[in-house]
Amino acid sequence: MNIICAVSTAPGVGGIAVVRLSGRDANVLAERFLNRRLSPRMATFCELRDDDELVDEVVATFFEGPHSYTGEDVVEVSCHGSMFIQQRVLQLFIDAGARLAEPGEFTQRAFMNGRLDLSQAEAVADLVESRSGLSHRLAISQMRGGYALELESLRQQLIDATALLELELDFSDEDLEFVSRDRVSHMVADLKDRVGKLVDSFQMGNAVKHGIPVAIVGRPNAGKSSLLNALLKEDRAIVSDIPGTTRDTIEETMTIDGITFRFIDTAGLRKSVDPIEDLGFKRAIKSAQQASIILYVHPVTVPFTESAIGDITYITDQCDMREKHLFVVHNKCDLPHESNPSGHIVSAKEGIGIDSLMQSLVKVARKDASQNDGVLLTNARHYEAMQRVLAALGEVQKDLDAGLTPDLVVINLRDALYHLGTITGKVTSDEVLSSIFSRFCVGK
Amino acid sequence: MNIICAVSTAPGVGGIAVVRLSGRDANVLAERFLNRRLSPRMATFCELRDDDELVDEVVATFFEGPHSYTGEDVVEVSCHGSMFIQQRVLQLFIDAGARLAEPGEFTQRAFMNGRLDLSQAEAVADLVESRSGLSHRLAISQMRGGYALELESLRQQLIDATALLELELDFSDEDLEFVSRDRVSHMVADLKDRVGKLVDSFQMGNAVKHGIPVAIVGRPNAGKSSLLNALLKEDRAIVSDIPGTTRDTIEETMTIDGITFRFIDTAGLRKSVDPIEDLGFKRAIKSAQQASIILYVHPVTVPFTESAIGDITYITDQCDMREKHLFVVHNKCDLPHESNPSGHIVSAKEGIGIDSLMQSLVKVARKDASQNDGVLLTNARHYEAMQRVLAALGEVQKDLDAGLTPDLVVINLRDALYHLGTITGKVTSDEVLSSIFSRFCVGK
Repeated sequence: MNIICAVSTAPGVGGIAVVRLSGRDANVLAERFLNRRLSPRMATFCELRDDDELVDEVVATFFEGPHSYTGEDVVEVSCHGSMFIQQRVLQLFIDAGARLAEPGEFTQRAFMNGRLDLSQAEAVADLVESRSGLSHRLAISQMRGGYALELESLRQQLIDATALLELELDFSDEDLEFVSRDRVSHMVADLKDRVGKLVDSFQMGNAVKHGIPVAIVGRPNAGKSSLLNALLKEDRAIVSDIPGTTRDTIEETMTIDGITFRFIDTAGLRKSVDPIEDLGFKRAIKSAQQASIILYVHPVTVPFTESAIGDITYITDQCDMREKHLFVVHNKCDLPHESNPSGHIVSAKEGIGIDSLMQSLVKVARKDASQNDGVLLTNARHYEAMQRVLAALGEVQKDLDAGLTPDLVVINLRDALYHLGTITGKVTSDEVLSSIFSRFCVGK
Repeated sequence: MNIICAVSTAPGVGGIAVVRLSGRDANVLAERFLNRRLSPRMATFCELRDDDELVDEVVATFFEGPHSYTGEDVVEVSCHGSMFIQQRVLQLFIDAGARLAEPGEFTQRAFMNGRLDLSQAEAVADLVESRSGLSHRLAISQMRGGYALELESLRQQLIDATALLELELDFSDEDLEFVSRDRVSHMVADLKDRVGKLVDSFQMGNAVKHGIPVAIVGRPNAGKSSLLNALLKEDRAIVSDIPGTTRDTIEETMTIDGITFRFIDTAGLRKSVDPIEDLGFKRAIKSAQQASIILYVHPVTVPFTESAIGDITYITDQCDMREKHLFVVHNKCDLPHESNPSGHIVSAKEGIGIDSLMQSLVKVARKDASQNDGVLLTNARHYEAMQRVLAALGEVQKDLDAGLTPDLVVINLRDALYHLGTITGKVTSDEVLSSIFSRFCVGK
């Protein structure tokens, strides 16, 4: 008997808690403690007893395999949510031969029984962890939507290309060869393009999952910290402190309109020192390089002269701006000033223009997230696999250009197919599986 | 529309979370977001959507009123347990016209709809809070078992006695009067006895619920704190610190074999001071008075002379020993000693005899808890009501002895019935209800 059990609801005391059992004849095991038989899918009010003693009044539901989450017989027992009852019910099931589930073991069994592929299983963990609307949408897309479809479509096209080349092997006809070569070339170019876009989307996908990094840079007294505080003040409810990687960098996370941002307040750039030699400046540049959005803060009271333009030029030189946005934020507009610059004009102190700035941040983040039709790579494991797919496709292209025979070209195509298969678990290894499922909470 | 909703599982992230809806046509409200219709009691796998957007894949179960926990239409939506999804699902239901439930509102509706009486509703809160086997058993007994039966039996007997007296009013026949007077007297005596036992059981019932108080007293250097530490060391897992009521009193709670004890380590009694004048001694006596079990600690290396006997005599004089146990604990048995006293011989330092002492504590606690057939009063509100029932019954007895006419005797009998009715909610007031249900967690 290999029945697993766990409390599937959040740890702690609640009105109710759900204890889940999965494995062949899990219903038979559960019924030993219930005063009623369970029919598939019927929520049944029962007494849960340990011999003569009434342990609790529960609602038990039996999901008959294979039509269950795990694909096995599953019983969910909804009991009163005291710690004592949760532990007692688990203990009864364990004493009767079930064992406590490992983290993610229910989902692992769902994968093993073909109810979910691996990338969908990973999406379940992302879904449980999702804290913002956008990361939630990406997890749903990975579990059910565009991402899963795109993976399947890529796989099908790889198989088609391989089949065409293999056809060529069987029928060595020059005309056929010419036609199929051409078609395969086109297919591989298209595949490379699509996989390349997915690989490129990882930075954004990762940013959505962990928060979009926004670097706040500028000279000392430009009001960088005040700007950070003003931004955070708008929605203090969802603010948390994350210690910066260096003592001089402050990171704050907040969620605006379903998008999580990580604001990085860098040390000011000292005026009197050669910027290239200034440690604070180096850190600011590093933050800017890692950020998706750079806010260059400049006080509107100081003319926007060469020094500021020099800073911005230097920053844009040092960063790959194709993947970034730079906003110039003219701060301190509450003080008397003569210039009338273009860009965001704010007063961090008085809260002027902050809301508009935030809306701009949300707007560019939304736009970035919708690139590639909103199909973003969010998972580092998938990113690595996709890079390998891309590399293999590059080799295929080289092979085709060099006019290699189909039997040789097919080797690299199969390699691409292999690496794509590791994402959905079509090909996999035990180490990969255990590292994936150990991320889960117990009971899922 | 008066549909309430709440997350009924423990707060936080889990594999799954359950959002509960209750109110007329709660299923209709839920179905607006689900892609499938719900049939009563059928656990249904659905997509939960906000217009075009897939929010989550859920299992929804509809419990059609009045056959539900609250007696109304209830829907339980089991969704993925991320904070985001829990909040999102709640928000959807609220936007559609439901409102967030108050703490205990589901159970309050169950009471209002006659699904539970008030003492059973209170037992649900106790059940959710129960942390030890014994407190769990008492809550179950209050919800379903002996306690509920005893309340009903008392009520029936009160009604019978009232009916007999009212019969007498209708048929003024001297023979009938004689017979019924006698029977009523017996019934009231029996009722007084049973209610008295329940009132007496409150100290134990309350102790079981909050931990059985054990006072550790003795002269300085007897090893009281070492004994406390030794007792706690046996089962550190379930130890928690509760700050004492005074700076000199340390309280520690632990659960042994399903019974929770509250150990109170008092300040030592100073040798050189008149015990009556010694503040520490006064505190020790106060602890002893409030305790169910007193451990008098004495070092075996010091002869058990008059001073110790004097202490014990004084303690037993000051406390009502009918409801208490006093154990003499001879400590430091690892050191050379000549005496060979009776009682518990331990070495707190070496851990000798501690397990045996603990077993004795469990044994007397079990015995106390099984008094009155294990039907214990655990609830302060019930205790107060029962005291009033007892007082009213005393008046009835006086009335009967004084030979008052039935119409007068009935007044006090009705009073007893009234106070008994407040326990189960047969008679009740809004203030009582709101104070009871505010104890609950939201979602129950």
